[in-house]
Amino acid sequence: MGTVDYAYPSSTNAECAHRVAIPPPQPFFKSLKYNLKETFFPDDPFRQFKNQPPCRKFTLGLQYFLPILEWAPRYTLEFLKADIIAGITIASLAIPQGISYAKLANLPPILGLYSSFVPPLVYAMMGSSRDLAVGTVAVASLLIGSMLGDEVNANENPKLYLHLAFTATFFAGVFQASLGLLRLGFIVDFLSHATIVGFMAGAATVVCLQQLKGILGLDHFTHATDLVSVLRSVFSQTHQWRWESAVLGFCFLFFLLSTRYFSKKRPKFFWVSAMAPLTSVVLGSILVYLTHAEKHGVQVIGHLKKGLNPPSFGDLVFVSPYLTTAIKTGIITGVIALAEGIAVGRSFAMFKNYHIDGNKEMIAIGTMNIVGSCTSCYLTTGPFSRSAVNYNAGCKTAVSNIVMAFAVMVTLLLLTPLFHYTPLVVLSAIIISAMLGLIDYEAAIHLWQVDKFDFLVCAGAYLGVVFGSVEIGLVIAVSISLLRVLLFVARPKTFILGNIPNSMMYRNVEQYPNANTVPGVLILEIDAPIYFTNSSYLRERITRWIDEEEDKLKSSGETSLQYVILDMGAVGNIDTSGISMLEEVRKVTDRREIKLVLANPGAEVMKKLNKSNFIQNFGQEWIFLTVGEAVGACNFMLHTCKPNASKDESQAYSNV
Amino acid sequence: MGTVDYAYPSSTNAECAHRVAIPPPQPFFKSLKYNLKETFFPDDPFRQFKNQPPCRKFTLGLQYFLPILEWAPRYTLEFLKADIIAGITIASLAIPQGISYAKLANLPPILGLYSSFVPPLVYAMMGSSRDLAVGTVAVASLLIGSMLGDEVNANENPKLYLHLAFTATFFAGVFQASLGLLRLGFIVDFLSHATIVGFMAGAATVVCLQQLKGILGLDHFTHATDLVSVLRSVFSQTHQWRWESAVLGFCFLFFLLSTRYFSKKRPKFFWVSAMAPLTSVVLGSILVYLTHAEKHGVQVIGHLKKGLNPPSFGDLVFVSPYLTTAIKTGIITGVIALAEGIAVGRSFAMFKNYHIDGNKEMIAIGTMNIVGSCTSCYLTTGPFSRSAVNYNAGCKTAVSNIVMAFAVMVTLLLLTPLFHYTPLVVLSAIIISAMLGLIDYEAAIHLWQVDKFDFLVCAGAYLGVVFGSVEIGLVIAVSISLLRVLLFVARPKTFILGNIPNSMMYRNVEQYPNANTVPGVLILEIDAPIYFTNSSYLRERITRWIDEEEDKLKSSGETSLQYVILDMGAVGNIDTSGISMLEEVRKVTDRREIKLVLANPGAEVMKKLNKSNFIQNFGQEWIFLTVGEAVGACNFMLHTCKPNASKDESQAYSNV
Repeated sequence: MGTVDYAYPSSTNAECAHRVAIPPPQPFFKSLKYNLKETFFPDDPFRQFKNQPPCRKFTLGLQYFLPILEWAPRYTLEFLKADIIAGITIASLAIPQGISYAKLANLPPILGLYSSFVPPLVYAMMGSSRDLAVGTVAVASLLIGSMLGDEVNANENPKLYLHLAFTATFFAGVFQASLGLLRLGFIVDFLSHATIVGFMAGAATVVCLQQLKGILGLDHFTHATDLVSVLRSVFSQTHQWRWESAVLGFCFLFFLLSTRYFSKKRPKFFWVSAMAPLTSVVLGSILVYLTHAEKHGVQVIGHLKKGLNPPSFGDLVFVSPYLTTAIKTGIITGVIALAEGIAVGRSFAMFKNYHIDGNKEMIAIGTMNIVGSCTSCYLTTGPFSRSAVNYNAGCKTAVSNIVMAFAVMVTLLLLTPLFHYTPLVVLSAIIISAMLGLIDYEAAIHLWQVDKFDFLVCAGAYLGVVFGSVEIGLVIAVSISLLRVLLFVARPKTFILGNIPNSMMYRNVEQYPNANTVPGVLILEIDAPIYFTNSSYLRERITRWIDEEEDKLKSSGETSLQYVILDMGAVGNIDTSGISMLEEVRKVTDRREIKLVLANPGAEVMKKLNKSNFIQNFGQEWIFLTVGEAVGACNFMLHTCKPNASKDESQAYSNV
Repeated sequence: MGTVDYAYPSSTNAECAHRVAIPPPQPFFKSLKYNLKETFFPDDPFRQFKNQPPCRKFTLGLQYFLPILEWAPRYTLEFLKADIIAGITIASLAIPQGISYAKLANLPPILGLYSSFVPPLVYAMMGSSRDLAVGTVAVASLLIGSMLGDEVNANENPKLYLHLAFTATFFAGVFQASLGLLRLGFIVDFLSHATIVGFMAGAATVVCLQQLKGILGLDHFTHATDLVSVLRSVFSQTHQWRWESAVLGFCFLFFLLSTRYFSKKRPKFFWVSAMAPLTSVVLGSILVYLTHAEKHGVQVIGHLKKGLNPPSFGDLVFVSPYLTTAIKTGIITGVIALAEGIAVGRSFAMFKNYHIDGNKEMIAIGTMNIVGSCTSCYLTTGPFSRSAVNYNAGCKTAVSNIVMAFAVMVTLLLLTPLFHYTPLVVLSAIIISAMLGLIDYEAAIHLWQVDKFDFLVCAGAYLGVVFGSVEIGLVIAVSISLLRVLLFVARPKTFILGNIPNSMMYRNVEQYPNANTVPGVLILEIDAPIYFTNSSYLRERITRWIDEEEDKLKSSGETSLQYVILDMGAVGNIDTSGISMLEEVRKVTDRREIKLVLANPGAEVMKKLNKSNFIQNFGQEWIFLTVGEAVGACNFMLHTCKPNASKDESQAYSNV
């Protein structure tokens, strides 16, 4: 970049009239209240309660927790028709998926049906999404299976295992609801988009690998979920593989994938893929019944108890040593389920242009799981696949969930014997076909193209889940994400600014190669808050910029460096370590007979600099509103008799 | 704040020529290399190696690790005189302090002398500070005592305890040196100034409380360090208190504190307070010898072995179960000691205008501890009190450490019998008087005035140390500090900007109450990078700003809101979640028939927006270099036939 002969704007003196304001002091408790409100109530949920009579406030409060009270009065027959169609469609998906996912969690298949009956009814009352279809999800099921499996063997002690699953669900619900009540919903935000892409793909891979058991008809299988253990387990018993099972599995998988492909190509026929799982179940059951394949290596579901959800409140285990496992499982699966449910709800709300309150959703999902845990259900949320079908089927309100619940109720009361001959391999095929849709490699490629760090997070989550475990993947991804945030604050960018030709603007010379530096003046922009984490770094870095600039000027024989202007426009905040850093930089520059100048510090920064007496020592006349004015003043001082310079400064410059 | 009739600058069209540049693409590995360099080598240590012949490079490399090779050739007789005076002065402080602190760590008193012999010699070779006086410190001694004491009882198994102390020192040294070699010195920065103020004050309080044992002449004392346990221990045995001991203790404490006060008032007489501890030891010993007070409840040091440091390499314990304790103690005490040593070195370097390389210091301090652990020394660093005396005594180079080491050597070889009758209560008085100087309540008041959050960190560290333990205090302080950084990124500030009268500048209306908002245009500044942690929040918050602005306009009957300008000047970076957020905000504004406009996005943001195709969809004509230009264009569009508006937009605005 070249340097220009800087033209002094004639308005320098007039513009110097703009002083950087120190914001008016605020009482401590007022600013504390403001900050707490911004942290916990950014969406201002009490806004509509303001200036209302008490009775209206009560109604509004009730409607806040039970949104059904708000929309039910406006419900029409038109809506009902749409919701019935959507509800029956999702029920046809919910029944086979419910059974499959319960198997994934090593729980009795009937629990999948129970979990599609009570929770949707609760959500219909409390949820604010119109499109979320409630049910169990594969990833959380797998997690429950692997985390509880470490503590209790599901085959050896099925009763205790079942009770632990209810307890974990209970704690997941309590945790979810508390997050919502305590306005801590932002914890879910720490699972970034990149984390979720990688995590979901990893979990889908792991779930598909687990299905090798069903597809190959194996009796013994590893409890571990990582790639290496599973492949070792599969290939160590090649003589146990059952070809009948495998053939059946691949046929159904092919059928399911082709219906999915067809529906994707022609969105009008969404019901083809929605009905495919139930069709597979029916076809598979008939096939097994007719051929007696259950006696030839094709495992079947077997007996399913008739009747609605039995109460399970008494089954919750609140005694050690199982309590910690249940709490840990509950919290981890609760967060994962919550993240999925809220992300899905938000996406569809975006399509239909309505608003979803994250904290309210958390309370709804949490309550649904607490109630579920007392009625023989395990962890439920809003799965993406089912909600997408619900949306495509034209649902209007959460009534579609009620319709689904009724359809499941009918199944539970009357149709359970029909599932006796359903082959497990069909369930495996259903799971695999659902999981393949979760591996979003296009999103991963997009991450790589746009943001390498996000890709790293995504890859970390994926590899952690596939080669370690679900928890390891999650910890890796969240750690890398947080490291990035800390690194941003620990190693802020600093840029040299130059003058954009024919303007008073100063911008990064790397971004604007035509920007010209000002002779004798080094203009630096700091791009992050100045905190203890970066104050040492910034001191080193600013010194290095000055060194490099002086070296360059020395080698080119130009004017020596006389001013360093720090553009503080992007410095959102400063702490006491940061203020000390500025003082130290000032000492360094004073020693070298360079004048330090600040430009455009924000309200928070000015407030703190003022309180710490930095401004008095620094001289408010050396703090400017814009870089342009600062440069103007520096040039004015460089070329005139320095009428404004204080004694100290004129002394310093007489030595130059 | 009022609104003004905005005057359209005649230069709108000319200024619109400034387009926001998308920085030229950089190869991935080049930018990776640049980022790694900024993260690990911000001070560019290889700069002086550039373009040098290999032989010169070798010399420079040797000088990097052994700075003595650099300054020794320039050493003069003048310097030697000054260094001898300073060295003898600090030796007179080092001997009593060394013995006292070794008692604090439950180690044999002689170790305090050993530790003032070998480590200073190592540091003199490798350290880059000219003022640091090496020795043991109270806080690290206390920490070693409490952490190792949890594992091994120092009275029951003194040999194992001693070996564990050497092992912990060894690991502390290895950890410190590795931090320096791996360029991870910035980890020390995570102990902010506020943390250190609170932590030091808490540790000083705890250390003083421990001295009640010596002052009151108690035999049995709690191993816990917290306030409650110590007071309970002291007041549960009031019948054991020895008044002789207490009287002697308070007399010496009074003497020490008054000399300190005197030297503080008249800095020329710094040697009065420097000599006071040794004087107290001599006086106390003579007094006990003459009065045979050791037989009347005044405990004395007893026999000290003559001779130099015995080797202790063979004593290091590398077997479990003690290994983990040693490593944990080593890492924690190592970090604390490092933070103190580097902060002290840096402060004095600042006074004398020379530069200290943090990573090089870490290697020096680490090596000094590794060597120390093999020669019967325990953890050493650069204590503040001793270095301040060194500085005041006029030391010129690290030779003062060599002089001190020789003085200690003479003591070890010849004078140890003189300490036989030294009363422990004098040592307690020395420790208390040193510790009281560490309670910097003025700094705490300053923190409260300038930055409430820093005060919270400080108070957390203090209370954690006093009521919990040293580790708890540290964890609390670091967690609160990090929480603040995360909170800054999770809840960034957003401001409304207004026009500063008679200028093209737009600034925060809260900071500049005279700034005027522009009718029909809402200008928002976002004050942090847009990351996954804040993207949900920002979406909510921006929507709320728009809601509030529309409500205000509606109630006042003014023009409706037509443009929202986001000032991205302070947005240092964006990730894929952030880009999705911007897309969602755009959908929200489009739905409300408001046009979203961006102003002044930086290089990193533009690069990512471009890669993710955001700019193509958004339209580069809606991204402006400054807020002023954006407002100009909005006003132009509002009042003319919108020649630039695309079909989509003109349709949107025809509905208004």
